[in-house]
Amino acid sequence: MKRTAFFISDGTGITAEALGQSLLAQFEYIDFEKITIPYIDSVEKARSVVERIDKAAAIDDGKPIIFDTIVNSDVRAEIRKSQGYMIDIFGTFLEPLEQELGSKSSYTVGKSHSITGKASYNRRIDAMNFALENDDGARTRYYSNADIILVGVSRSGKTPTCIYLALQYGIKAANYPLTEDDIVDQRLPEVLRKHRQKLFGLTIDPVRLQLIRNERKPNSKYASIKQCNYEVEEVELIYRRERIPFLNSTDYSVEEISTRLLMMTGIERRIS
Amino acid sequence: MKRTAFFISDGTGITAEALGQSLLAQFEYIDFEKITIPYIDSVEKARSVVERIDKAAAIDDGKPIIFDTIVNSDVRAEIRKSQGYMIDIFGTFLEPLEQELGSKSSYTVGKSHSITGKASYNRRIDAMNFALENDDGARTRYYSNADIILVGVSRSGKTPTCIYLALQYGIKAANYPLTEDDIVDQRLPEVLRKHRQKLFGLTIDPVRLQLIRNERKPNSKYASIKQCNYEVEEVELIYRRERIPFLNSTDYSVEEISTRLLMMTGIERRIS
Repeated sequence: MKRTAFFISDGTGITAEALGQSLLAQFEYIDFEKITIPYIDSVEKARSVVERIDKAAAIDDGKPIIFDTIVNSDVRAEIRKSQGYMIDIFGTFLEPLEQELGSKSSYTVGKSHSITGKASYNRRIDAMNFALENDDGARTRYYSNADIILVGVSRSGKTPTCIYLALQYGIKAANYPLTEDDIVDQRLPEVLRKHRQKLFGLTIDPVRLQLIRNERKPNSKYASIKQCNYEVEEVELIYRRERIPFLNSTDYSVEEISTRLLMMTGIERRIS
Repeated sequence: MKRTAFFISDGTGITAEALGQSLLAQFEYIDFEKITIPYIDSVEKARSVVERIDKAAAIDDGKPIIFDTIVNSDVRAEIRKSQGYMIDIFGTFLEPLEQELGSKSSYTVGKSHSITGKASYNRRIDAMNFALENDDGARTRYYSNADIILVGVSRSGKTPTCIYLALQYGIKAANYPLTEDDIVDQRLPEVLRKHRQKLFGLTIDPVRLQLIRNERKPNSKYASIKQCNYEVEEVELIYRRERIPFLNSTDYSVEEISTRLLMMTGIERRIS
């Protein structure tokens, strides 16, 4: 059984893709070829998409499934002429929403990506620069500007989390690696003690950590299971003793670590 | 007019939030308070959410709007008992999809985030590390491993784009800044010539570039409009002469730059 799924949008297609993927993941025994077609913002462009859909329909074992987030109803109507089965997100929900809200929608193409607003955009890029410049303990003197400071052993997921927090939520996140020196001292470095209320710990399963480190530095002491066990154990002790909230990142994606961190800390997103 | 919008999910809530934001952006004259509630994966948790919704309903000028991407129908049914107006995404589309596909859905909580699969996860993190280590021309000897190499003047958006391509699509993107030296030479540096087919240029409106640079180094030659004009003009000449595909990043978000770059280059995403 082979079917094609189209994610079609007048913008980036990221929302249509995310939603479509969620729904299709529920049908694990069907093999979908997934095609994202962004920036379909005119009837002419829609016509060429219809051709692609109809070609797939002629070959596949069933109608192509279309997930679309196109705002303009003329463009949607054009897509509807295809041989595909349409999951029409705006078409389905916009009218009931208009009734519930007692207000007409503005049908403005591009409006759907509020993230492009200049203020939000600058906040995200500033936060990203902050994450890059304050990565891995490289610089500590701007910690007073940080919304959060991630701590953890090397390769526990700090950097990707900081960058995701910046990009998705405009949050300024620094990170500081806890090393053997800190562990031997049995106390937090001075520079972190001053910002205790901003600290958030990551931890990780030592076996997983070993695998990750071994890809970086094969057969090193750094990547030995003994060293990984030792560092993780000691760092978790520090978290508990210092009452630093922490999360085990082993089974989580960057998105999951970030959203759970927001829940646990109550930090506000900087873009809306 | 004040209304509350809830984005509720059994996972991160990112999809519910993106879709809800898209739809609400169509009602620009209504002031929404937006609340994301992730990880609602039990009837008990759903009950506490219903309390929050009902509290908002009692205060607001109308029913709270609920956008949910909860897979489990029992949990959804609990949310439905609230005073909110429910945009029930799985409830609306899953049954018609089952009919069209002739297959029952697996209703598996968490399935919706296929991005968490270990292989995809590793590919994203590898790509992110690649972007960080091959940022800003810091290292050029691994360009043969790159999927794409972004070029452009300083502060034209190369780094955020590389990182986004890594995180969202698992694409390995390096970037190399074109400086005055390259401009004076009137030719591409040798290290880029060897990988011509991987090059993609960014350009930017000089006035916008000046603003961005001025925040970094106020009143410098680097941030002067004269310098910005000169660099942008010359770099665009290089793009045209060398037939490097390029994009003006001025009015685009990181998501838009990235998706347009995929369209223009035909590069395949590395995760699906």
